[in-house]
Amino acid sequence: MTNLAELKEIAPKPIWNGVAARVVQGERITLAVVELEPNGLVPEHQHPNEQLGIVLEGSVTFRIEEESKRLGRGGTWRIFGDAPHEVRAGARGAVVIDVFTPTRTDWESIEDDPARSPRWPS
Amino acid sequence: MTNLAELKEIAPKPIWNGVAARVVQGERITLAVVELEPNGLVPEHQHPNEQLGIVLEGSVTFRIEEESKRLGRGGTWRIFGDAPHEVRAGARGAVVIDVFTPTRTDWESIEDDPARSPRWPS
Repeated sequence: MTNLAELKEIAPKPIWNGVAARVVQGERITLAVVELEPNGLVPEHQHPNEQLGIVLEGSVTFRIEEESKRLGRGGTWRIFGDAPHEVRAGARGAVVIDVFTPTRTDWESIEDDPARSPRWPS
Repeated sequence: MTNLAELKEIAPKPIWNGVAARVVQGERITLAVVELEPNGLVPEHQHPNEQLGIVLEGSVTFRIEEESKRLGRGGTWRIFGDAPHEVRAGARGAVVIDVFTPTRTDWESIEDDPARSPRWPS
């Protein structure tokens, strides 16, 4: 497998209802470009993986424990392991980057969706 | 310190000649939004940290060991620990995301540049 790949060559995985991720999988880091449908909700959940991320396009309302903020392009998050968090996309949806360590091995069993063009970059 | 921050609130650090990074620092991951000047070069180097990344704007030519590719928006890289790599920005420069684990503690001693607007998002 190549170490230099174009996002459009990577098939999306349906990681949540209305939420799809294209994944670059390292040995220690998962980097995901995640598309959220308009008003798409990832309800409160938690995992031992540390998670950082940033909005590329659109907007989300992010909540980490008791801290909540609406974030547009360039808005970032930092979620320490096991911190409960929730995210809801804005009315136009969103494209974000999420990175995790350790890797999200729980995603490896999710079958890819058929190839389609990424929403970002357009 | 907040866990939900806007990129424009983060001061840039001059991590290399012609290369500045705005850093979201986790406990286990460093997420950096990195601006490279036109034709800016990060000469071959290596580090034990695993590094993944993606181009947000502009273009770069990336080399990891013997593999080399010109990457525009949506181009990605995966650099396992201690793999030699080099990157040169295109004629219009580039903005990229780089993520590392363990964190880049070696950047903590670099003094911030004065605050200025990020090149991305514009």
